[in-house]
Amino acid sequence: MAIVGGTGALGFGLGLRLGRAGVRVVIGSRDAGRAHEAAARASERVPEGWFDGRVNPEAVDGVPAVVLSVPFRNQSENLTNLRDALRPGQLLIDATVPLAAAVSGKATRMLGVPQGSAAQQAAEMVPDGVRVVSALHTVSAAQLADLDARLDEDVLVCGDRRDDKREAAELIARVPGLRCVDAGRLEMARITESLTALMISINARYKTHAGVRITGLPADPWPAGG
Amino acid sequence: MAIVGGTGALGFGLGLRLGRAGVRVVIGSRDAGRAHEAAARASERVPEGWFDGRVNPEAVDGVPAVVLSVPFRNQSENLTNLRDALRPGQLLIDATVPLAAAVSGKATRMLGVPQGSAAQQAAEMVPDGVRVVSALHTVSAAQLADLDARLDEDVLVCGDRRDDKREAAELIARVPGLRCVDAGRLEMARITESLTALMISINARYKTHAGVRITGLPADPWPAGG
Repeated sequence: MAIVGGTGALGFGLGLRLGRAGVRVVIGSRDAGRAHEAAARASERVPEGWFDGRVNPEAVDGVPAVVLSVPFRNQSENLTNLRDALRPGQLLIDATVPLAAAVSGKATRMLGVPQGSAAQQAAEMVPDGVRVVSALHTVSAAQLADLDARLDEDVLVCGDRRDDKREAAELIARVPGLRCVDAGRLEMARITESLTALMISINARYKTHAGVRITGLPADPWPAGG
Repeated sequence: MAIVGGTGALGFGLGLRLGRAGVRVVIGSRDAGRAHEAAARASERVPEGWFDGRVNPEAVDGVPAVVLSVPFRNQSENLTNLRDALRPGQLLIDATVPLAAAVSGKATRMLGVPQGSAAQQAAEMVPDGVRVVSALHTVSAAQLADLDARLDEDVLVCGDRRDDKREAAELIARVPGLRCVDAGRLEMARITESLTALMISINARYKTHAGVRITGLPADPWPAGG
């Protein structure tokens, strides 16, 4: 899999965790040097992991799944650059959050996105046949990157096709302590993306790295055929 | 305390739980007969509880705290009717959710509210000196009303003054299994209100009554002086 924005805090932390879980991770950056440097850093932190650093459009070549983890202000530009690189059948897991911080506003406030959410903007911009789901908005980048931190929380996954969500869930759940929950159609990303702002508000109050758990769910949120 | 909209599913369930916890509960309804009937029903379910049924503006007379738990389409009307009844110093805990269902849309979608959220609309409409906080959007009415159901979830509380939130938290946490979390300023209600729509989406998928837990918090989210 590849992480576009893999040198950023969330992307890099996720890469470390996936690499430690045995997933081959391509760290993508718009700068080849930074991509290589991040991959070397990841290998140092997780010697048993497989990491590669590649410049961004090339980072997605041949991988089944791509996590898009970039600041909202760069999301549209990144998707434009990926347009000729993404291939039908690939899964794009969008983790972008339209925080008002993108326009020098508060990180506890959300921007209105014309399509409804960053994920819906992604769905509008990817080539035909690329499947888009939305996830990973409530997982703390700091917790991911702290490999001694024990994760114990949920990841809300939105998407219009259950199989796509299941595929994303299986990838993300390779990280011990992360359970994925089907939060509904892709348009629900309007709500799940805003949970980043909520976590930021809670973190500021409690000086912590909060996460989300959904209570009342069945033991297996992704039963076969379900 | 009084629950305006106490004959509705959420309000009634909350009333039962608070009554069982030893809180005196006034069930308010715009119809005196329905208020009395609901109080009688509550007394039957919770014989040890203290319940009174009163018609709506009168329901809030002399109580320290009022939960406003009405459909969004009636929130403004209710607040107008309460204007001459609410007194400075009273605490209004707004639990209203601007679901698109209010205008025959989907219950997984939110309406845009001119003030930002239902809670902010409430803050705009109450008399001076009435303190408004926002809470109780993710607790399942069905779970509350099922007195055999064991609650184990969080209630996100938003408000502009920490002491008001603490007061609401102390009241709500009288219900065993409910922990309150400070989610930030009242404007964060834009996000916490939308969690109702998220719960509805998750409930539809999992045929359950989901709730929310925030992970990574200190053991006591409301330390003295904090």
